[in-house]
Amino acid sequence: MLLIKRIVLDVLKPHHPNSIDFTLSIAEKSPGSRVELTVTEVDEKTETVVIVIVGENLHYDTIADAVSSMGGSIHSIDKVEVENEPD
Amino acid sequence: MLLIKRIVLDVLKPHHPNSIDFTLSIAEKSPGSRVELTVTEVDEKTETVVIVIVGENLHYDTIADAVSSMGGSIHSIDKVEVENEPD
Amino acid sequence: MLLIKRIVLDVLKPHHPNSIDFTLSIAEKSPGSRVELTVTEVDEKTETVVIVIVGENLHYDTIADAVSSMGGSIHSIDKVEVENEPD
Amino acid sequence: MLLIKRIVLDVLKPHHPNSIDFTLSIAEKSPGSRVELTVTEVDEKTETVVIVIVGENLHYDTIADAVSSMGGSIHSIDKVEVENEPD
Amino acid sequence: MLLIKRIVLDVLKPHHPNSIDFTLSIAEKSPGSRVELTVTEVDEKTETVVIVIVGENLHYDTIADAVSSMGGSIHSIDKVEVENEPD
Amino acid sequence: MLLIKRIVLDVLKPHHPNSIDFTLSIAEKSPGSRVELTVTEVDEKTETVVIVIVGENLHYDTIADAVSSMGGSIHSIDKVEVENEPD
Amino acid sequence: MLLIKRIVLDVLKPHHPNSIDFTLSIAEKSPGSRVELTVTEVDEKTETVVIVIVGENLHYDTIADAVSSMGGSIHSIDKVEVENEPD
Repeated sequence: MLLIKRIVLDVLKPHHPNSIDFTLSIAEKSPGSRVELTVTEVDEKTETVVIVIVGENLHYDTIADAVSSMGGSIHSIDKVEVENEPD
Repeated sequence: MLLIKRIVLDVLKPHHPNSIDFTLSIAEKSPGSRVELTVTEVDEKTETVVIVIVGENLHYDTIADAVSSMGGSIHSIDKVEVENEPD
Repeated sequence: MLLIKRIVLDVLKPHHPNSIDFTLSIAEKSPGSRVELTVTEVDEKTETVVIVIVGENLHYDTIADAVSSMGGSIHSIDKVEVENEPD
Repeated sequence: MLLIKRIVLDVLKPHHPNSIDFTLSIAEKSPGSRVELTVTEVDEKTETVVIVIVGENLHYDTIADAVSSMGGSIHSIDKVEVENEPD
Repeated sequence: MLLIKRIVLDVLKPHHPNSIDFTLSIAEKSPGSRVELTVTEVDEKTETVVIVIVGENLHYDTIADAVSSMGGSIHSIDKVEVENEPD
Repeated sequence: MLLIKRIVLDVLKPHHPNSIDFTLSIAEKSPGSRVELTVTEVDEKTETVVIVIVGENLHYDTIADAVSSMGGSIHSIDKVEVENEPD
Repeated sequence: MLLIKRIVLDVLKPHHPNSIDFTLSIAEKSPGSRVELTVTEVDEKTETVVIVIVGENLHYDTIADAVSSMGGSIHSIDKVEVENEPD
């Protein structure tokens, strides 16, 4: 069975919602996950953040939707970890 | 259940209260937390500090209030960690 | 018995499929493996990625086929780990 | 209950007492503590030292008094760690 | 009893056989060993690789023969670890 | 009870006795200790060494005497660790 | 009881014997030891190597003799670790 265990995204987000709420919303869509957001750059209107999502069986599209629904845009997928576990 | 596990803040604080009392006041508002304050810059009237708060279920607003009530201002939220634990 | 335990590849891939699907496809061909893809460079049409595949008994040709079947090309084999386990 | 677990101080001390006795005197005031003194700079009449005090329940004023009683002066509080433990 | 536990070699190898087969052939000659090959430089006709061989009781000549039999040449022995275990 | 657990000294020593015998003599004066001597600089007539002494209950004066009795001089006390253990 | 646990030597050795045999010969003189040789520089006629010898109760003179008997010369003793264990 193929399971996505870890995704690292480079994301451009607006100042609102703030990083706390932004992270909460992403985690909400991925039960059992741990989401870590680190602000790498702050501009007048936006913030560049690196988001690390770790879980047992992540779904990329759900995460991507959560980001865009808050006005964010995925600049790049920086890292992906997948496990092919015996069924 | 969504739980904020870790918050890293970049804060500008006045010299008084000193870093000891500043840290105690923040910890006081978050039962079960561990708060670490590191001074990164000292100016004539203010100090820039990085505050790492780790706990089981942190509440950002409570922390933000504690900071501002002591004359401090949150310059930026640098890092957030959230867990989506099964209910 | 000779077992390939770890392979590190430097790969040039097109933007599509994205890194998520690219990683899933490689993992799919190697039961029991863990595949980690890190994007090191993004150009107009391609991305340079480093792929680390870890498993009990990897088969290089299968992995190479998976990469080329998605329009990718192996720029170099950067690292290989093999164990000679008693039969 | 609020407990100070760790304090890092930047201190300017005279050559006498030497670092051994200076450290012993600070530790003496904090039962159960571990005190580590590192000399970072040596001048003609003084030494700049970084003092890390780790304990279960430190009292800053006691430590500050010990430092000043030996002719030292606290240049800055560099780091503080506090725990809010359930009573 | 004298046992060679670890050897690190700097080797110049032709492009063929590739690093996978090159590593497999070296491991094949050392039962119970783990062989790790890292490519450090790629030229038009050759590759410079660092080979780390770890095992219980390695035999250098066997490894050296394996390298030369595939058209490689040992540029230098970078590191050796030996244990003198009680008989 | 105040116990000195670790002392780091910057010492200037003559070439004779050599570092082996110099270290043995210091260790001899501190039962249960572990002494590590690292040569940081070698000049025509002297060597600058860093000596780390770790033990349960070190006595600085004994160590200082051992150093000077072999023609060495303590350039500086770089680090001290003390524990205040319950009696 | 004073026991030498670790010695780090900077040694200049001829190309022959090679590093494998050079290491084996040193280990042979120190039962129960682990000897690690790292080549740091290669010149036309000699090699500079760092030799780390770890054991329960090393004897420096024996090691020094082994080095010189193979045409090597100890450039410097870089590090020594001694333990003063209760008898």
